[in-house]
Amino acid sequence: MNRSKITPIVLSVIIVILAAAVVLLLIFMKNQPIETRGVPALIEIAAMEPDSEKWGVNFPNQYSTLLKTETNNTGTVYGGSDPVQKLEVDPRLVTLFAGYAFSKDYKEDRGHMNSVTDVRATLRINDKTPGTCYSCKSASNPSLWAEMGMAAYDKTPFNELGARIEEPIGCANCHEAGTMRLIVTNPALEEALEAQGKDWTTFTRQEMRSVVCANCHVEYYFKGDGKYLTFPWAGGTSIEAIENYYNEYDFADWTHPDSGAEMIKMQHPDYEMFTAGSTHFNAGVACADCHMPYTRDGSVKFSTHDVHSPLTNPAQACGACHTDVDYVVGRVSAIQGQVAATMYAAEDAILDAIEAIKVAAADGKANAKLIEEARALHRSAQLRWDFIAAENSMGFHNPEEALRILASATDLARQAQLKAVQALP
Amino acid sequence: MNRSKITPIVLSVIIVILAAAVVLLLIFMKNQPIETRGVPALIEIAAMEPDSEKWGVNFPNQYSTLLKTETNNTGTVYGGSDPVQKLEVDPRLVTLFAGYAFSKDYKEDRGHMNSVTDVRATLRINDKTPGTCYSCKSASNPSLWAEMGMAAYDKTPFNELGARIEEPIGCANCHEAGTMRLIVTNPALEEALEAQGKDWTTFTRQEMRSVVCANCHVEYYFKGDGKYLTFPWAGGTSIEAIENYYNEYDFADWTHPDSGAEMIKMQHPDYEMFTAGSTHFNAGVACADCHMPYTRDGSVKFSTHDVHSPLTNPAQACGACHTDVDYVVGRVSAIQGQVAATMYAAEDAILDAIEAIKVAAADGKANAKLIEEARALHRSAQLRWDFIAAENSMGFHNPEEALRILASATDLARQAQLKAVQALP
Repeated sequence: MNRSKITPIVLSVIIVILAAAVVLLLIFMKNQPIETRGVPALIEIAAMEPDSEKWGVNFPNQYSTLLKTETNNTGTVYGGSDPVQKLEVDPRLVTLFAGYAFSKDYKEDRGHMNSVTDVRATLRINDKTPGTCYSCKSASNPSLWAEMGMAAYDKTPFNELGARIEEPIGCANCHEAGTMRLIVTNPALEEALEAQGKDWTTFTRQEMRSVVCANCHVEYYFKGDGKYLTFPWAGGTSIEAIENYYNEYDFADWTHPDSGAEMIKMQHPDYEMFTAGSTHFNAGVACADCHMPYTRDGSVKFSTHDVHSPLTNPAQACGACHTDVDYVVGRVSAIQGQVAATMYAAEDAILDAIEAIKVAAADGKANAKLIEEARALHRSAQLRWDFIAAENSMGFHNPEEALRILASATDLARQAQLKAVQALP
Repeated sequence: MNRSKITPIVLSVIIVILAAAVVLLLIFMKNQPIETRGVPALIEIAAMEPDSEKWGVNFPNQYSTLLKTETNNTGTVYGGSDPVQKLEVDPRLVTLFAGYAFSKDYKEDRGHMNSVTDVRATLRINDKTPGTCYSCKSASNPSLWAEMGMAAYDKTPFNELGARIEEPIGCANCHEAGTMRLIVTNPALEEALEAQGKDWTTFTRQEMRSVVCANCHVEYYFKGDGKYLTFPWAGGTSIEAIENYYNEYDFADWTHPDSGAEMIKMQHPDYEMFTAGSTHFNAGVACADCHMPYTRDGSVKFSTHDVHSPLTNPAQACGACHTDVDYVVGRVSAIQGQVAATMYAAEDAILDAIEAIKVAAADGKANAKLIEEARALHRSAQLRWDFIAAENSMGFHNPEEALRILASATDLARQAQLKAVQALP
């Protein structure tokens, strides 16, 4: 072979090798978590490090936006992060939660960085409060759970445990140090998923971008004397499944002093409502897509950790998918208005039921069996209403499901009222 | 100037002139109604020509698809065009409409070409039926209204007017011969729009692609002894505005024999529900976009006139805008399931109210004032439920509004039941 024939062959081989190298590099880069793709870490982060400031050395954009949650607390029409006293905005709540701590203090939550300050300030806390109440409030938790075990953590009195709780919600609540991958850190969530036969370590990254929010944004209760943090998900996460769970376990958060009903307080079931076949969830959207949208700062693109209502930054939050941001914000507004009107009607119906049961119960000659039936209906109605009322979206996480549940709440409340009236002699 | 310089200038001028001509031609073609853009009309169509076959000479694709509505009557889970007897599917309707013709016969409607056959066959027609009942059934109407005037048309007995009604729904119900533009042909619609200060001749073509459906797909009533066809829209088209309208006019379709309430039968308020801020309406979608989607037949593209549920041809109907047809069909199914469950709960509540009022009214010692209040609540509840039940989409035309209204219907029905129980001595 002469030289003029060899040269093209050699060149072709070089080109093929280079092309293969480029493809392999691209594949390799694609499989890397976004956080490890850039410059090497400046410092090593200890496993379950509670102090977000240390993580912030390696991830300054994520950290500086997390810090914004301390002061960037804007209200929206039906929510947001402005700590308004809900009991003043809607005085019906005082009667609905009579006999329970939520009738004393029910402020809208501020951003994540205020979690420890605010839980210590709420009037709902007293000397008997268990440590369980810190479960959703601190980046100190993962290391404490690892050290103490969740059962011991939950049994420790709130005021005693407080000495160990130094950090508000932070990096360690959702991330694994070193890899920065998203992880389930709350043992109660891991156990609740296991009870459904689910293993979060098999979840896709997009699924994890919702599931980590379920570390806290869920309905839960304190099980048994040890006040063991438990999610009532064994039978499913629909309101009907959760009600059945509580009924089988014969659980109550408190007894309503006016109606005598055994009540359940629902706690922000954002994850349950969103994943109950909502259009966004079914379309593959994760919590973080709307609440932590990708943001640019100079040449850097990252997921903002200034978590709040998408209504406060719709151009980023909705605009990532929707070209018509004004239109979709208008839709949110219309839907929330419809849900709010339906929710207030449910509240009126429940108040009427409470009053009717109170009157019947005060009458010595009233039919005790019918009063008991009325109480069961009151419980059933209010836990449905509260599933929507306590949820942080005025129905928008799943509008049709919210309205379906509220319609049922009103129906049951009116039936409770009727039973109470029929109980009278 | 020499020849070599002139030639390029001449050529340039020619090119500019030709380019301008092309642009002008394109602009001209763009502004033409699609129907007049193609080959010249083969025959001249008389104004308000009742016989669609004649129009079909010029518009064979539109006509041949219209003809399909005679036999292409597929049912869907909650509707479609299969003439099932609703009274058998949901026997609660027999009690809900007791004392009214809809308790005798309430079939799902078949396609447009069956309109005259089916209205003559229904058991709801008798010797006293006014001609008004033909208002939505025939392409013979525009010419008859022009000849007789609507007042005389409506006064003519149904059986007498029938001799003049030769054609089912057809071209003349929505189109102007010659221009083929979409027009309001039903005088009742024109008057209802006028009562709201609206002039349909100023509407855009896209608005007309919904408004022509409102020639028939609306709530209406027969006003006064002349049974004058009237849409109750003077105060608006929301259910609350329509209820207020009927209450001010002190109108009732019939008296319920069990409860004694003065009832309103709602009639397919598809246009009112769709335009009440639904997401599709707000996004600029017209009725025809989903129910008469653009269709290809060989090289021809036209708006199909085989009008039916988009669930029977979702690839065309939804696929014109949505890339993920399976996903959106799944959404429709989920939403309709939620609306149906909420609707059946409303029916149960209304049946309980009817029974309770019946019992109270039979008791000579019952409180007459409370019974009257219960009857007013029965009317109010049932007209809300029927606004959704009679509407042809199981809520999908406007899901949140449908669920809001149904929640309110159930609330009012339970209040009616309660009042009746309280009326007992």
